[in-house]
Amino acid sequence: MSGSRQLKLGAFMRPVSIHTGAWRYPGGLPDGNFNFAHYRRFAQTLERGKFDAIFLADSLALLKMPEGALKRSATVTSFEPITLLSALAAITEHLGLIATASTTYNEPYHIARKFASLDHISGGRAGWNLVTSGNPNEAPNFGLTEHVEHAERYERARELYDVVTGLWDSWADDAILRDVATGVYFDPQRVHTLAHVGPHFSVSGPLNMARPVQGWPVVVQAGSSEAGRNIAAETAEVVFSAQSTLEDGKRFYADVKGRLKRFGRDPDTLKILPAAFVVVGTSEAEARAKMARLDSLVHPESGLASLSVALGHVDLSGVDLDGPLPEIPETNASKGSRQKLIDLARERQMTVRQLCQYVGGSYGSLEMIGTAASIADQMERWLHEAGCDGFNIMFPYLPGGLDDFVDQVIPELQRRGLFRREYEGRTLRENLGLPRPKNRFFDAR
Amino acid sequence: MSGSRQLKLGAFMRPVSIHTGAWRYPGGLPDGNFNFAHYRRFAQTLERGKFDAIFLADSLALLKMPEGALKRSATVTSFEPITLLSALAAITEHLGLIATASTTYNEPYHIARKFASLDHISGGRAGWNLVTSGNPNEAPNFGLTEHVEHAERYERARELYDVVTGLWDSWADDAILRDVATGVYFDPQRVHTLAHVGPHFSVSGPLNMARPVQGWPVVVQAGSSEAGRNIAAETAEVVFSAQSTLEDGKRFYADVKGRLKRFGRDPDTLKILPAAFVVVGTSEAEARAKMARLDSLVHPESGLASLSVALGHVDLSGVDLDGPLPEIPETNASKGSRQKLIDLARERQMTVRQLCQYVGGSYGSLEMIGTAASIADQMERWLHEAGCDGFNIMFPYLPGGLDDFVDQVIPELQRRGLFRREYEGRTLRENLGLPRPKNRFFDAR
Repeated sequence: MSGSRQLKLGAFMRPVSIHTGAWRYPGGLPDGNFNFAHYRRFAQTLERGKFDAIFLADSLALLKMPEGALKRSATVTSFEPITLLSALAAITEHLGLIATASTTYNEPYHIARKFASLDHISGGRAGWNLVTSGNPNEAPNFGLTEHVEHAERYERARELYDVVTGLWDSWADDAILRDVATGVYFDPQRVHTLAHVGPHFSVSGPLNMARPVQGWPVVVQAGSSEAGRNIAAETAEVVFSAQSTLEDGKRFYADVKGRLKRFGRDPDTLKILPAAFVVVGTSEAEARAKMARLDSLVHPESGLASLSVALGHVDLSGVDLDGPLPEIPETNASKGSRQKLIDLARERQMTVRQLCQYVGGSYGSLEMIGTAASIADQMERWLHEAGCDGFNIMFPYLPGGLDDFVDQVIPELQRRGLFRREYEGRTLRENLGLPRPKNRFFDAR
Repeated sequence: MSGSRQLKLGAFMRPVSIHTGAWRYPGGLPDGNFNFAHYRRFAQTLERGKFDAIFLADSLALLKMPEGALKRSATVTSFEPITLLSALAAITEHLGLIATASTTYNEPYHIARKFASLDHISGGRAGWNLVTSGNPNEAPNFGLTEHVEHAERYERARELYDVVTGLWDSWADDAILRDVATGVYFDPQRVHTLAHVGPHFSVSGPLNMARPVQGWPVVVQAGSSEAGRNIAAETAEVVFSAQSTLEDGKRFYADVKGRLKRFGRDPDTLKILPAAFVVVGTSEAEARAKMARLDSLVHPESGLASLSVALGHVDLSGVDLDGPLPEIPETNASKGSRQKLIDLARERQMTVRQLCQYVGGSYGSLEMIGTAASIADQMERWLHEAGCDGFNIMFPYLPGGLDDFVDQVIPELQRRGLFRREYEGRTLRENLGLPRPKNRFFDAR
């Protein structure tokens, strides 16, 4: 690894913190995830910190969980990602804008068009987190009685990716002429009709929008299952991963980067950013105290809701909080996190309550709790030992956790040459060091 | 009619002008409809002029038209409305934000969620223009080989309206508690599961978002067919109409307002805003000269494309420009404008070329071409003779046409007491004088 490699940093901002106690933290924002004025401030702080991108997860349903848990969930109401990022596009200049959009319950024409529009509005800062819907409660909001099967979801996702990127390639980069004198606005010979017909989609095209500024918005993925890794290796440019130890991180990194060769891809064209839950203190002890204070604000019933989701949306109503984790049936939801939690509970002999605090807290993420220097040490090690290309930062609470990171950790990373002092380029792609995709239908002229 | 009635004004801004010569006008913006910096300026000018709202039409396909026409169309690439309005929400404070979303090719959960999100982001300024897709070229972008039939589109639209507004009512206005001390974020007893099952949709709900600031975003419609008028009378709060003479306007106004009684609605709860194409000069002659200059920039082939759409997306390739309009087959597209044009062509014995200039120009709209005083005279007459509640203004070219209107016509209307000097309220609904919808599932407490 070259010493000149630098970290890429995303900010995982929805709900403002993944920590279910965050909204109750002293000085926190109880309406943090549902007040645009706060997001305005968050985005501008991230830009001051030279973050690559803000990243918004998504959900197309209220989670089904016991009422005592549900009512403690501050994530039940939050902005829809595309609208929120479009609003943030107007008040930022450099920050990348990455929204999740499900391939299971969206039409490819709509996805292609909205992300292309966001890319144009923002001058080339859009990213699409391509997910399959792991939440079985989404199906009945879209006319289905049964959750779509895991394998079929991935097949559909793969085909949808082809359609969306094909629509983004509808227009040659030089198709628009705007010749005022002759009145010719564009060259129809430089526009391609897709005419896609496949098992899941028939889409004629072309897209009614010029090719995105970035060619394509940056394609992001977060799946960690076998199917998820394969589709990432073939199609993703950024992977948000979830390894909580450097050893696991290195294994995942080597595995996914190794898979790229099969698809003729240069490993540098995929950036792997593990989620990192970062708590900054002026001393190790202060950081630990902040974390303990925060964890104490996780209500067990709220943690239970998080646990239910992490285990694959299983019904945990009536479970004994002080007993061991009962047998958890395998479901059709995301498989990655389920097994990890079951193993962890067995290994450490945790009660359901303890597991609740853990999941409702930092969610089993990689934790970096300490001073700016010790956090930078950890990040440096991950980068130099091929555990990552950067991180997707989770702030423990807002706005304090974000301010601390930008005011303390970023300068330390910059001093060490591990992070940019100025944005490298104009677009998200340029800042991440990703190539602009060629147009499959048109050679550049 | 009371003398104290005031006009409501929308701005029809996509593409920036409906006039196909606009992008070629001297001092105009050839990239006006696809450059966010320009929209930023337009929106801020509209807000300076105290406009009620900006209104964006939409299309989910490139139009099929002869290549010579297609290549002259400046509307082939434009922003997607929801993303654009969300961006504008962040840089305006009062302007209403009305986007078109098709009921034919969108899922109700997505419509409800995106418009609710826009309403929250903007602090209560969202409006939804509920349309059925009249463009047969959209179907093949959504897996269909045949355009959905007119009657079925309206049935689907009507049911979708119920689902969307039902989802907006998922949450009682007081459901969110955010009690930091107890950790209770909201009251699940104040959230309703919709469980809609109908011929076109099965949607469980609830929406995963608090009730919109306005209760519901303002519901807008533009259909003028029999089916369109009925659904408007039952459900719309604003109608964008297209009568080009005061006599027609009065007839339409009386007809639609009259239909409201059937649904137990107060006629004041629906605002009818005819489109008005306004060209302002310091003299009548100057205004006429501007219009003539503008019309001269409509290329016949471009006008032909507009004509094809207006006649119901018929294929006009090979037609003789200097002959009369040939027999036009009835299609499954919007029926309203087709018959009007056929009648007009017969009545005035217009050639296809003349018809092209007319449609490619002000599109058969109500024209107001003159000084600020004469334009204000016309508007006053329409308002006081029960022809309208205001207008949806079409600017002939940008930015000049908009600047002229705001700098010259608005002050004249204000002097006459016909238009606000300051916004009445915080929300679009408050500015339009529309009541906030009651929640069908929850009484206010």
